[in-house]
Amino acid sequence: MTLLSTSPTDAASSAFATGAAYMDGAYVPLSEARIPVTDWGYRRSDVVYDVASVWDGAFFRLDDHLKRFRASMEFARLVPRETDAEIREILHKLVALAGLREAYVAMDCLRGRPVPGVQYHPKNARPYLVAYAVPFIWLMKPEVIERGAHMIIASTPRIPEASVNARAKNFHWADMTAALFEADERGADNPILLDAAGNVTEGPGYNVFCITDGVVATPDRNVLGGITRLSVLELCAELGLPCEVRDVSVDELRDADEILLSSTAGGPIGVSRLDGRILNNDRPGPLSQKIRETYWAKRKAGWHADPIDYAAA
Amino acid sequence: MTLLSTSPTDAASSAFATGAAYMDGAYVPLSEARIPVTDWGYRRSDVVYDVASVWDGAFFRLDDHLKRFRASMEFARLVPRETDAEIREILHKLVALAGLREAYVAMDCLRGRPVPGVQYHPKNARPYLVAYAVPFIWLMKPEVIERGAHMIIASTPRIPEASVNARAKNFHWADMTAALFEADERGADNPILLDAAGNVTEGPGYNVFCITDGVVATPDRNVLGGITRLSVLELCAELGLPCEVRDVSVDELRDADEILLSSTAGGPIGVSRLDGRILNNDRPGPLSQKIRETYWAKRKAGWHADPIDYAAA
Repeated sequence: MTLLSTSPTDAASSAFATGAAYMDGAYVPLSEARIPVTDWGYRRSDVVYDVASVWDGAFFRLDDHLKRFRASMEFARLVPRETDAEIREILHKLVALAGLREAYVAMDCLRGRPVPGVQYHPKNARPYLVAYAVPFIWLMKPEVIERGAHMIIASTPRIPEASVNARAKNFHWADMTAALFEADERGADNPILLDAAGNVTEGPGYNVFCITDGVVATPDRNVLGGITRLSVLELCAELGLPCEVRDVSVDELRDADEILLSSTAGGPIGVSRLDGRILNNDRPGPLSQKIRETYWAKRKAGWHADPIDYAAA
Repeated sequence: MTLLSTSPTDAASSAFATGAAYMDGAYVPLSEARIPVTDWGYRRSDVVYDVASVWDGAFFRLDDHLKRFRASMEFARLVPRETDAEIREILHKLVALAGLREAYVAMDCLRGRPVPGVQYHPKNARPYLVAYAVPFIWLMKPEVIERGAHMIIASTPRIPEASVNARAKNFHWADMTAALFEADERGADNPILLDAAGNVTEGPGYNVFCITDGVVATPDRNVLGGITRLSVLELCAELGLPCEVRDVSVDELRDADEILLSSTAGGPIGVSRLDGRILNNDRPGPLSQKIRETYWAKRKAGWHADPIDYAAA
């Protein structure tokens, strides 16, 4: 299979300046990356995805993202034509085409379209891969990350994993979107969603940690297996911070000394307010800051780095 | 606001033969109706929709669909530029452009895209309308409808309405898709999903009725307020069949004399098997057939009909 169906010239390269996309075999400028309105990937949100980050010219933990993406696809019975090695090559090429040193790199596998005259069933569609690289997107503005995030506990409960597997990364975000509006109305930056039993789950784009008496805890049910979450768990071990992966009740969250978020779109991010309550003198807490600083120092030093070959564009 | 931004010639009209679409102000052939890959309508499934049907050159209950679509949009805080009167005009025009006597007519309101340099929040996107008309899509093949649908009770529970409002018609279908695969693997046509408490909810594209000792019952929680469901309720009243709108347990469904589905994509559809158990001599039940026949007889006679002005194309 030939993955490169266009051979960009210098003129074409400039068309990639705002972003480069791969659509089912073809490299196109981001502005041409469009999904048919009849595609079940849109129409039934029958799609899984992943997002990797590029910082200082290198992917972070790309193999972990590729492994998770494949697991999401397998769970959803979505099999694109591309192998993991080919997807890796495509993602590298997209970043090189867009000429980005810091990038947000998304990969989606969509169900595809119903076939005329054939039984109207997802098994009869042809799944395919879409990917794109754009300038890095911060989950929150840098000044918000600096002062610490202001969070609320959302009134909308997270979709339970019995209905939609949160570990197969998906776009079922109506609960997240409702929570984002609620946070905005309550003057906060972002929400944390609970499950129906009142346990902490996650927020739109991040996992949640709470730190009490020096012990870090993060939930394991109804959450995405975040790659930055994994990094935080590893950093805790390295820093000698005891870390527990288990149910975290809303009461434990409310009483925590510190709260920390983790996201590909920003790394570990400290929280300074929860439902208006001020934590840590209205700043990210000391252990949260330690984790955040260690994370970025290690990334600068090449931790899990996979450098882009910009000549490949 | 001028809704018609293209004035199709005869040549252009032929491009609409496989379907006509309206994309945020412009009429285009269906093949050109594509959603940007970065649109939150796709990327977070931050979109509501509706589907109306055209039969024998007329819409059915179009005002009810428009009213429900507006309620879905209001719930999701999605406000397109178009008024209901304008949406009505667009939908009529799409059917006329495609030259269809029988049509499946979809209308979506999408959140839109993040705005560069502006806070990454759905409130800052510009929602917009997409609609299209294509040849009528049957929920099941006519021969399946004739022999009665073979159903299963799915093992995946429906997303609870506390997390995602089923009445605001949406594309959060991962539970439905999983159930469609399960039905296929178990040799059935389609699934019925339960809630976490074991009550009947709905299936992918239809409401569910069960009929026991001449009494019709249909659930009211965790279900879409189906337009065909409403029509069945009206037909029951007209036919003198007592009808109860209340929780329906899975045991009641399993023991029912008859099971009936209702969908815009096929009207009332009788069930002949549930989890392999044969109902009514392996055919749609007599009351289900009566409801189905009355429904189509009334539609043929112009019930709630809103004729297309084909000259408007």
